[in-house]
Amino acid sequence: MTTTGPVVCFGELLLRLTAPAGSMLLQDSYVNAHFAGAEANVAIALARLGHPARHVTRLPANPLGDAAIQHLRRYGVDTTGCRFADGRLGLYFLTPGASLRAAHIVYDRAGSAFAGIDADSFSWPPLLAGASRLHLSGITAALGAGPAAAASAAVAAARNAGIPVAFDGNYRASLWTGREHLAPALLRPLAAAADILFGDARDIALLLETAVADHDRAVAAAFAAFPNLAVVAGTRRTVLGSDRHRLSARLDSRAGHAETAAVEFPVVERIGGGDAFAAGVLHALAERPADLAHAAETGLALSILKH
Amino acid sequence: MTTTGPVVCFGELLLRLTAPAGSMLLQDSYVNAHFAGAEANVAIALARLGHPARHVTRLPANPLGDAAIQHLRRYGVDTTGCRFADGRLGLYFLTPGASLRAAHIVYDRAGSAFAGIDADSFSWPPLLAGASRLHLSGITAALGAGPAAAASAAVAAARNAGIPVAFDGNYRASLWTGREHLAPALLRPLAAAADILFGDARDIALLLETAVADHDRAVAAAFAAFPNLAVVAGTRRTVLGSDRHRLSARLDSRAGHAETAAVEFPVVERIGGGDAFAAGVLHALAERPADLAHAAETGLALSILKH
Amino acid sequence: MTTTGPVVCFGELLLRLTAPAGSMLLQDSYVNAHFAGAEANVAIALARLGHPARHVTRLPANPLGDAAIQHLRRYGVDTTGCRFADGRLGLYFLTPGASLRAAHIVYDRAGSAFAGIDADSFSWPPLLAGASRLHLSGITAALGAGPAAAASAAVAAARNAGIPVAFDGNYRASLWTGREHLAPALLRPLAAAADILFGDARDIALLLETAVADHDRAVAAAFAAFPNLAVVAGTRRTVLGSDRHRLSARLDSRAGHAETAAVEFPVVERIGGGDAFAAGVLHALAERPADLAHAAETGLALSILKH
Amino acid sequence: MTTTGPVVCFGELLLRLTAPAGSMLLQDSYVNAHFAGAEANVAIALARLGHPARHVTRLPANPLGDAAIQHLRRYGVDTTGCRFADGRLGLYFLTPGASLRAAHIVYDRAGSAFAGIDADSFSWPPLLAGASRLHLSGITAALGAGPAAAASAAVAAARNAGIPVAFDGNYRASLWTGREHLAPALLRPLAAAADILFGDARDIALLLETAVADHDRAVAAAFAAFPNLAVVAGTRRTVLGSDRHRLSARLDSRAGHAETAAVEFPVVERIGGGDAFAAGVLHALAERPADLAHAAETGLALSILKH
Amino acid sequence: MTTTGPVVCFGELLLRLTAPAGSMLLQDSYVNAHFAGAEANVAIALARLGHPARHVTRLPANPLGDAAIQHLRRYGVDTTGCRFADGRLGLYFLTPGASLRAAHIVYDRAGSAFAGIDADSFSWPPLLAGASRLHLSGITAALGAGPAAAASAAVAAARNAGIPVAFDGNYRASLWTGREHLAPALLRPLAAAADILFGDARDIALLLETAVADHDRAVAAAFAAFPNLAVVAGTRRTVLGSDRHRLSARLDSRAGHAETAAVEFPVVERIGGGDAFAAGVLHALAERPADLAHAAETGLALSILKH
Amino acid sequence: MTTTGPVVCFGELLLRLTAPAGSMLLQDSYVNAHFAGAEANVAIALARLGHPARHVTRLPANPLGDAAIQHLRRYGVDTTGCRFADGRLGLYFLTPGASLRAAHIVYDRAGSAFAGIDADSFSWPPLLAGASRLHLSGITAALGAGPAAAASAAVAAARNAGIPVAFDGNYRASLWTGREHLAPALLRPLAAAADILFGDARDIALLLETAVADHDRAVAAAFAAFPNLAVVAGTRRTVLGSDRHRLSARLDSRAGHAETAAVEFPVVERIGGGDAFAAGVLHALAERPADLAHAAETGLALSILKH
Ligand SMILES: Nc1ncnc2c1ncn2[C@@H]1O[C@H](COP(=O)(O)OP(=O)(O)O)[C@@H](O)[C@H]1O
Ligand SMILES: Nc1ncnc2c1ncn2[C@@H]1O[C@H](COP(=O)(O)OP(=O)(O)O)[C@@H](O)[C@H]1O
Ligand SMILES: Nc1ncnc2c1ncn2[C@@H]1O[C@H](COP(=O)(O)OP(=O)(O)O)[C@@H](O)[C@H]1O
Ligand SMILES: Nc1ncnc2c1ncn2[C@@H]1O[C@H](COP(=O)(O)OP(=O)(O)O)[C@@H](O)[C@H]1O
Ligand SMILES: Nc1ncnc2c1ncn2[C@@H]1O[C@H](COP(=O)(O)OP(=O)(O)O)[C@@H](O)[C@H]1O
Ligand SMILES: Nc1ncnc2c1ncn2[C@@H]1O[C@H](COP(=O)(O)OP(=O)(O)O)[C@@H](O)[C@H]1O
Repeated sequence: MTTTGPVVCFGELLLRLTAPAGSMLLQDSYVNAHFAGAEANVAIALARLGHPARHVTRLPANPLGDAAIQHLRRYGVDTTGCRFADGRLGLYFLTPGASLRAAHIVYDRAGSAFAGIDADSFSWPPLLAGASRLHLSGITAALGAGPAAAASAAVAAARNAGIPVAFDGNYRASLWTGREHLAPALLRPLAAAADILFGDARDIALLLETAVADHDRAVAAAFAAFPNLAVVAGTRRTVLGSDRHRLSARLDSRAGHAETAAVEFPVVERIGGGDAFAAGVLHALAERPADLAHAAETGLALSILKH
Repeated sequence: MTTTGPVVCFGELLLRLTAPAGSMLLQDSYVNAHFAGAEANVAIALARLGHPARHVTRLPANPLGDAAIQHLRRYGVDTTGCRFADGRLGLYFLTPGASLRAAHIVYDRAGSAFAGIDADSFSWPPLLAGASRLHLSGITAALGAGPAAAASAAVAAARNAGIPVAFDGNYRASLWTGREHLAPALLRPLAAAADILFGDARDIALLLETAVADHDRAVAAAFAAFPNLAVVAGTRRTVLGSDRHRLSARLDSRAGHAETAAVEFPVVERIGGGDAFAAGVLHALAERPADLAHAAETGLALSILKH
Repeated sequence: MTTTGPVVCFGELLLRLTAPAGSMLLQDSYVNAHFAGAEANVAIALARLGHPARHVTRLPANPLGDAAIQHLRRYGVDTTGCRFADGRLGLYFLTPGASLRAAHIVYDRAGSAFAGIDADSFSWPPLLAGASRLHLSGITAALGAGPAAAASAAVAAARNAGIPVAFDGNYRASLWTGREHLAPALLRPLAAAADILFGDARDIALLLETAVADHDRAVAAAFAAFPNLAVVAGTRRTVLGSDRHRLSARLDSRAGHAETAAVEFPVVERIGGGDAFAAGVLHALAERPADLAHAAETGLALSILKH
Repeated sequence: MTTTGPVVCFGELLLRLTAPAGSMLLQDSYVNAHFAGAEANVAIALARLGHPARHVTRLPANPLGDAAIQHLRRYGVDTTGCRFADGRLGLYFLTPGASLRAAHIVYDRAGSAFAGIDADSFSWPPLLAGASRLHLSGITAALGAGPAAAASAAVAAARNAGIPVAFDGNYRASLWTGREHLAPALLRPLAAAADILFGDARDIALLLETAVADHDRAVAAAFAAFPNLAVVAGTRRTVLGSDRHRLSARLDSRAGHAETAAVEFPVVERIGGGDAFAAGVLHALAERPADLAHAAETGLALSILKH
Repeated sequence: MTTTGPVVCFGELLLRLTAPAGSMLLQDSYVNAHFAGAEANVAIALARLGHPARHVTRLPANPLGDAAIQHLRRYGVDTTGCRFADGRLGLYFLTPGASLRAAHIVYDRAGSAFAGIDADSFSWPPLLAGASRLHLSGITAALGAGPAAAASAAVAAARNAGIPVAFDGNYRASLWTGREHLAPALLRPLAAAADILFGDARDIALLLETAVADHDRAVAAAFAAFPNLAVVAGTRRTVLGSDRHRLSARLDSRAGHAETAAVEFPVVERIGGGDAFAAGVLHALAERPADLAHAAETGLALSILKH
Repeated sequence: MTTTGPVVCFGELLLRLTAPAGSMLLQDSYVNAHFAGAEANVAIALARLGHPARHVTRLPANPLGDAAIQHLRRYGVDTTGCRFADGRLGLYFLTPGASLRAAHIVYDRAGSAFAGIDADSFSWPPLLAGASRLHLSGITAALGAGPAAAASAAVAAARNAGIPVAFDGNYRASLWTGREHLAPALLRPLAAAADILFGDARDIALLLETAVADHDRAVAAAFAAFPNLAVVAGTRRTVLGSDRHRLSARLDSRAGHAETAAVEFPVVERIGGGDAFAAGVLHALAERPADLAHAAETGLALSILKH
């Protein structure tokens, strides 16, 4: 366990309501209920690995928000950065895939307490005091002008305090519907502030508004565009069948790169695999900053365990 | 079974998410999920009694809305009056009471597809064609100016077509928070259009903006204020303990009244008791219009079965 | 624990399919499944009390019949008297009562492997060898001419071998629908063979085809009509509310009677209360044959535990 | 959505009681309960695709029959053709397969309300009025002389009214046990009436009482034997492992045929795959009557989703 | 919320395995699993009330111990005082009562990681640093010489540091089986150190080895025997029926006493009622030290909510 | 079904508490509960195959022990050899594997009623009277000096009475932690007494304290070292993926050997596969003693069904 300060994660905490295995949504008289949220997943995974982690978010001031706090605390995440406000808890309804039927999601997150934040909702200096790192993702920018401004404020405060920033693109077209054109301008400054960027050639193309290049060129372009950038971390997935994937991980620095062998495995549930990868990489780099190969292996191992 | 046309019910359909018995919200990994909504409950209860019933509402154009339609159809409700639109499905989270702990509700219904309706969302003449009655409740007026206008439009169309209107006050302070002052003006025209009013002295005082009177005076005042009114129907509840109630029903006409004996019973779940009462009264009056005593007994019996 | 031979119980074993608490039948995607059957309940209760018990029945030669055997064996009942044949397993579907709504049963037992038995289906002498008692009930006679003949054969064999017989009237009108007129003639010989009769004044009136008398007279009439009869055992129930009963037990011999105090208790589930009473009485009388008071107390205690 | 009249489906509705995953029958205290029945599955699938569908069947006049009606209505199937009668609801008990253990079924359908029908149980002209098609299967003929006569009557009425007939062989040896020799004579007239036949070379051989030929010859023989026949539709399955199948679909007309590529997929549950195929083909041919390739693709896609 | 330091609770954390409602132990294929332990219940209740609470215990160094930590953290309890060691997690198996059948417990706690502690297992000064109070109970002393010595050491350290001590007798004969004679000598020093004692006349008689006196005399004797004692807090329970209790609370100081009215309520589950009472009293006295009436009301309210 | 006497199985009966699929231990509010124990699994499997089987063990004298008896009886195992004593029921907690995550076990069996047995705990001659075989495994020897002595006593009594002995090595390093050096000396006499040995080259090397040889040599060495030995039976497993194994079975006698083809299959749950193999081999050899091939096929088939 490291003795450095906490990783501060910033992002929305959601409730996922899932149809029981083999059923369509609301055909049965219950739904499974679990908390979700990319950045909170990273915080929880880090805390379970013994790494101090603090989650910063805004929750509704009601029993749903209280339960969200309990969820974070259960896994040892520091919740002193969680604020309460009017508004709802963001939800999404998931019908898991089965055989060749794809999973299906109904988002229901408009009007959440988190979506209502803006640049002034959090007082960042105390929230970041003593932190070893800030971690955030592109999802926050997708939620609207307010959250995007809050993300900028967080990043600015971290830069100010000399705290390194990790950024996970986490681009999901469905979250940007109708605002796709805003994505590059909103995401670029966040990526520009980061020393660790989670993403692949597609994410880099989006950030740089270029065509999708091969991996080496994309990474080179990212290093050229973002002077702070030290590491680009991503996974490569081959879908062998609906329930069988092959996954490898690759980390690039300016000095070189490390790539794991590809591992084939049965997929139980995909959700959260990317977050576990990020947590594994952050954890490994915190312990052995220069060891790209170790970080790639750790990220891959955690990601597969999550699948 | 009657041969007259359908009772057309109009109101929001919600999803109720309930913590498992004995648990607080989101302490377990699932929540029970059931459709709810006062007016839809009436439609379903009527259909189960063999009475034609049509439900008019607006639902989100997604799998949650589809499941809501399936719910109505399952019990034989005609869904040709259900429209689809953008927006969410209204939700509420319920923690059931236990021993002396009261039940607790978190509403999460802002922004629903139904809340976005206005006076022009429904083309009432075809929806009401052939109907034997329109049934609606004060809940719709509480949801905002648009739904209130839609309720007015429905009532106007029914009056125009000579179709009798039943109105259930269903006043819940928590639904009117911040808009309490608007309630009388919004609800009074709906009550004024009705020949059957579900409510008690407290509801009448609210409508007439008077102090709460005893039952006889309140009913007299209602008959004086609302020339179309033929029947006032309500229940009187004595709470004997957290799990034991005593309930009687009373119907007043201009000519007299009928009152049942009070029945004592163990309470399993309170939700929907008022709706079942309304359905029982409507059903009985449809079959034997002048028989207040029969209607009071039928309403009471159904209400208790629902508890 | 007694050292005497087994009580041999004879009767149908059924599967009860029950709607989950609070639901109507088949509204949910599962039903609870438990084995039932009055005489088998007695056998199981005796075995759990440490008394040897053998159950004689006929089951379908399929996995349902196998599971029924496992059920009996689990509680230590000797299943060497169970036969297999074509036919189905008798079922009944139960919707439990709630609040003031009564429980509702749908029988589905026609054509069962047991219903197809006749006087020759069992070779009674070996089945009864070494037995301390035969126990059967009026339900078997209700199932048709074949089962009634089989019950007669069982009773005749027991009388022949000097084995005492216990008979539980267990009259349920719904089982005799269309054959009510046959009941007295079919049941009387079974009661006439018994030294212990479970029943009350209503049961005796049915057997003797007289009007229902008060308890003392009914019992006197039974002793007069049935020379073998030594004990009449029954319970008196006062329903205080849907979930609250008061129950007392009374045993009459030719020499006198014993009656317990009445015990008030909350009712969880009624089914099987009468069977537990019979098992308790049989167990107590096997250990202390002359102690009516002890037997009444034991029967009452077991019956209440079953409620 | 098409504007043509409803597809009228005719057949038994059953209740399937399934052991929980990983358990043998009745080892647990509950069983999963779902409605089943090949023709009703087709009706439901068509209704979910937006196609009007009416199901004609006979159900027991009890709460199980009521729940069956609710099941059909939930998915939008018109139930005006459902009749009620004495008798039971047909059941079957299913132990799902696991690893290399095959699934196991115990039928319990003798004496059902449907099995008691005969040629006069339904008044077909009004039931078929306005219909775009009648769909039935060989299962009905397997249930006994009465149901077979009812199927003939249905087919005759459809022919009379000029309504096309679809027939799914659905041959299951276990349903015909002891009556195998009757199958060809009972099934042939049904197939002879159909313009669409669901089946493969094995089904055709059975109908024509010939040896099993290769697919092309079998289809040619069918077209020769049945002058009304326009389309033969079937699937070809390769079992790659207990949980992995490969499936393709083929439709033959007198003018040619269309065959899909074979799709490999993990099998979740096999039941109902054939019904979904039939529904997909009927739906596609209703929209684009001449497009065999489109129908084959649609049928295959729906069938795989059901697995 | 108070700004004073944490209440430090010290005691064993157990896992309770409970048969599903209505079932006997291990008749079903699952058991409900919840963490328990009198002192940890107090810590959790205080934390939920917003009061800082730290739990000190020893847990097995395995996934069960990890899950115990997560349980405490979930509700906001500070777990920095939890140690890990070899040994097991203490368990108990509970069959809930039903109707007149009493609940039944099988303890399985021998050899637990906590039972192996001794006077030196915890370094108390840092664990108590900044604490506003130490809370412990007689259960720890019942677990053996080692735990009893650890309790003494805790109390001594608290006294040394000037930290007030609360002691809950929590006498359960079944925990002391075979060691009953040791109880007074082991418990008396713990009570002597306390300024708040939870218990009634029976507990005081046990501590002072006198006959059970009436409440006033017992309390007077306790104040005479224990110079540090400031408050005696207890509840009085009347069992009205198996599922209906009446409860009142009383607090005595040297200056007087406060007693609540008796509240009648339906009992859902008894376990933990005493712990909730203690937490309510500690919380109320921390906020308003002199207000006995307020503390009695708060304790009673929380206790009833737990039933 | 054979007419020979029962196979007497001797070993501990445990309770397995399993996290729900997809969850970690104690993240949910329940755990699945099933009885386990290698030798009892063999007894149950034999009884289900129609072979008489008696299980000899010691259980705690409490409701958990009673439930264990019920479990054995349910499947027709003779429990007259089960004794009761103080102590606990041995437990283990299982987190099933998922995707690439391995299953994880927490043993909690110290201090069990069985672990407390010694050479005199069972009176073997009557327990073995009429038996066709004694079956035991190396697990018993691993539990301590007392159980090891009891196993020796059982084997000695069997040899004395001329009853053949089957021995399953069942070596699990985790059970011998800290006592590994004792294993060969404790296990060798048990193996030496056996005519059927379940194990592979690794097990034989352990018994003979040699290096692991190839299969043929290992078997030859075993036949040389153990003059009583007639058959060595084992399986060869190839792990193709986390959820896909290939398994073959081989039986060696002094005269030759038989080996099945390798079967590939999806793995649902591994636990108990070895026990099912042993039961299948014992059953087959009891019916056709010389038919190695038949026994290998039977063992393999049962083992795969258990996976
Ligand atoms: N709209 C959203 N807002 C925040 N988090 C989301 C949203 N949608 C999904 N997530 C979360 O993002 C995480 C990553 O999603 P996933 O589908 O696994 O993609 P990947 O593994 O490629 O990152 C999940 O944990 C999920 O809970
Ligand atoms: N906000 C709401 N909008 C619509 N229906 C509601 C709302 N809140 C509750 N309901 C519904 O109103 C119905 C009646 O509620 P209930 O609490 O039983 O009061 P009562 O029985 O006195 O009418 C319930 O069926 C519930 O589903
Ligand atoms: N048709 C039946 N055939 C056999 N047993 C039945 C039948 N119906 C009910 N039983 C059984 O009879 C037993 C006694 O029923 P119950 O309703 O408790 O009446 P009572 O307690 O008055 O005897 C129950 O265990 C039930 O399983
Ligand atoms: N005896 C039966 N009577 C009516 N329907 C049945 C019967 N047995 C099975 N079915 C139904 O037939 C349908 C098709 O069965 P299935 O086993 O999937 O075969 P296939 O997919 O090859 O047609 C299923 O939906 C099932 O519910
Ligand atoms: N052996 C034990 N060790 C520790 N805690 C125990 C033990 N037995 C019970 N408890 C705990 O003690 C608490 C109080 O028990 P309870 O039966 O409610 O008595 P009371 O309410 O009178 O104090 C419960 O929370 C339970 O978890
Ligand atoms: N410590 C133990 N004591 C007794 N039986 C055990 C123990 N651990 C596992 N078992 C039992 O041993 C049996 C065999 O275990 P398993 O893991 O399947 O190995 P294999 O199949 O190779 O023999 C299982 O049924 C399990 O219940």
